[in-house]
Amino acid sequence: MNGESQSELRAYCVDVARRAAAAAEVLALLDSPLKNRWLLASAGAVRGNVPAILEANGRDLAAAKDGGLSAAHVDRLRLTAARIDDIARAIEEVAALPDPIGETIERVRRPNGLEIAKVRVPLGVVLFIYESRPNVTADAAALCLKSGNAVILRGGKEARHSSQAIVDVLRATAAEQGLPEDGIQLVSPADRAAISRFLELDEYIDVAIPRGGEALIRLVADEARMPVMKHFRGNCHVYVDAWADLRMARDITVNSKCQRMGVCNACESLLVHAEIAEQFLPEMAGLLNQHGVEVRGDERVCRLVPSATAAAEEDYYAEFLGPIISVKIVECLDDAIRHINHYGSHHTDAIVTEHLSAARRFAAEVDSSAVMINASTRLNDGGQFGLGAEIGISTDKFHARGPCGVRELTSYKYVVSGNGHLRL
Amino acid sequence: MNGESQSELRAYCVDVARRAAAAAEVLALLDSPLKNRWLLASAGAVRGNVPAILEANGRDLAAAKDGGLSAAHVDRLRLTAARIDDIARAIEEVAALPDPIGETIERVRRPNGLEIAKVRVPLGVVLFIYESRPNVTADAAALCLKSGNAVILRGGKEARHSSQAIVDVLRATAAEQGLPEDGIQLVSPADRAAISRFLELDEYIDVAIPRGGEALIRLVADEARMPVMKHFRGNCHVYVDAWADLRMARDITVNSKCQRMGVCNACESLLVHAEIAEQFLPEMAGLLNQHGVEVRGDERVCRLVPSATAAAEEDYYAEFLGPIISVKIVECLDDAIRHINHYGSHHTDAIVTEHLSAARRFAAEVDSSAVMINASTRLNDGGQFGLGAEIGISTDKFHARGPCGVRELTSYKYVVSGNGHLRL
Repeated sequence: MNGESQSELRAYCVDVARRAAAAAEVLALLDSPLKNRWLLASAGAVRGNVPAILEANGRDLAAAKDGGLSAAHVDRLRLTAARIDDIARAIEEVAALPDPIGETIERVRRPNGLEIAKVRVPLGVVLFIYESRPNVTADAAALCLKSGNAVILRGGKEARHSSQAIVDVLRATAAEQGLPEDGIQLVSPADRAAISRFLELDEYIDVAIPRGGEALIRLVADEARMPVMKHFRGNCHVYVDAWADLRMARDITVNSKCQRMGVCNACESLLVHAEIAEQFLPEMAGLLNQHGVEVRGDERVCRLVPSATAAAEEDYYAEFLGPIISVKIVECLDDAIRHINHYGSHHTDAIVTEHLSAARRFAAEVDSSAVMINASTRLNDGGQFGLGAEIGISTDKFHARGPCGVRELTSYKYVVSGNGHLRL
Repeated sequence: MNGESQSELRAYCVDVARRAAAAAEVLALLDSPLKNRWLLASAGAVRGNVPAILEANGRDLAAAKDGGLSAAHVDRLRLTAARIDDIARAIEEVAALPDPIGETIERVRRPNGLEIAKVRVPLGVVLFIYESRPNVTADAAALCLKSGNAVILRGGKEARHSSQAIVDVLRATAAEQGLPEDGIQLVSPADRAAISRFLELDEYIDVAIPRGGEALIRLVADEARMPVMKHFRGNCHVYVDAWADLRMARDITVNSKCQRMGVCNACESLLVHAEIAEQFLPEMAGLLNQHGVEVRGDERVCRLVPSATAAAEEDYYAEFLGPIISVKIVECLDDAIRHINHYGSHHTDAIVTEHLSAARRFAAEVDSSAVMINASTRLNDGGQFGLGAEIGISTDKFHARGPCGVRELTSYKYVVSGNGHLRL
């Protein structure tokens, strides 16, 4: 790209970011009924525009087939009338969430009569960079608007026409409701360099949220001048303790690994206490094999499980996102905790045990966004937690950790009231 | 610096950061009585080591005089037996704060019986970079330890011996109590390049907190790969509304500007509603002049206040940290809000008014960490808010905003308990 088009690109990005910031000022002050009316009208408009959205989706599908995308990818991209109805319903669910904005989080009256309220406010402008299916476009827009934020959406090129059709509907509805259209802006994915330009604009953009492959997320984390909400990988563990109910352990392992394999809270690694390994592992491995999952184990695992292959060191770091699981036999709870904190991704890790002290120690010492006790890793999810839809899951400790919904898209301010109070 | 000493420096910084991370793992799990016993013993040891601390301080004072530091700087650096007692008392006050760690922030039981607890945990390793007086060393260490974090302290060179003497006492007390000494590490300020090396180590360091001049803070914000808690400037406003009690307005303005001038929550700019300017400003300016404060105003201000000089555009952006105030006459509340959001630093801004709707709009629309209604800007402070001591004030919206005490040095994790719960 030459100098002139570089500076044109920068000017374009600054313009988009400024518009977003101006819209955010308005959105921050909207009352809940207005935001909900807009969301409900948007859901209605999505339903009313099924033909246009399907037509746009058809263009994406045609390009995907020409581009040689796999059948699975094409299927994820495909919209149907039923899937478009799901998109509308998801927007209605966001409308039904409590409005986080304006909530008084705390209020204290100091001994001198000064009243201090901590009041929830929006973050401002969210830059959402994603590679996913078209429905993510609508989800992200709805979550940001509900929480009083403006959003700049930068989706993957595979879904460009579908996303544009959905955003056109949402913006048109905003205009009809007298709300700032620039609260939702979709930027063209044609130019990858635009991401880098946006990530410099911390003057206007308050947070960047990347969702997709690790390479995309690393790029955003490296270049962003504003804070980033993210997780790099989900290398989630199930640890089966010596005191586990083995039937429960089996069900939790199968569910954690196999209920859906390509997602960040799927189990990638199974740790088994040495005492019960002989009794537990052969049957467990057989079940995993039945689900098409390849077992990669350490030497002892391979002795117990003839179908297992030898695990390399890097298999214990890996996020397979598919039908492979690494397995290791550990001597004790301490070894399990150490292994998880070392090889894991601080995302979601489960223990199966009936031993109360083991459960307490695991919960305290495993340094992950969510620790599951006798429950599947797949349950670490905004919907399952009752937070409503999520814009992502964070493995950072700063600001928000775990599933991030509307409340995690907020900040707060102090509103301090006196009657002439001075500092003495 | 040549390549060899560069790589030595990097190895040194990695070693310090690794030690901190190892200590943080231990500190995260300490019970409150242990932490409080350490804090109280530390306070006792500070009182028991007055001669050693004074001797070290004497060396800093001698160097300061040789180095030509101003009398005011030398005074800030000077410790006395009474000031050392204040340091010990501040540590005792931190011990008396509630322990934030382990607190269950929320607990829900989902319809399927899954129990989800949101539990407060430490951030991990704090890198605290500061230029201030020796007491800040002890305050920061106590706040970090109380919140279960390890801290790497990188103080200014003027106080190097005093800080080292204080840290020696704190580390020796930790060792006596069986706690990890590396929970508190002081790094030599001799080498400015060490800051840049530490700021690369996001693998070990969870947050960087710079406190000092704007240049230092910009350096940290630009280079840090980990999150930063900060404020760049404190350009705080007092807006005197048409409906103000003018006597209250006068007292709040004097207190906000003059109670202490060199601090971030001091008032730097006064906005006055046109309707009451003639009645209010001449007397107000006279009072400010009596406190030695120079008034820089717009054209109308200069007509009303003969002693005022003409303000340049950059005066309205300035953090004077001294006896200068910028003054502007505004036509209405909207102009005041617009001015503050444009020229201000999102730190602390006050309105003086008896008009309820004006106060509500000001509170909602001024985008600052704290909005004061009929109260001095100087009251935006952890101690005044009842949060206990503060490690700084944040003007960011991410993670923490306003005064940051022990609770703002924490994160959370989800602890999810089931009895074999699966994702359906």
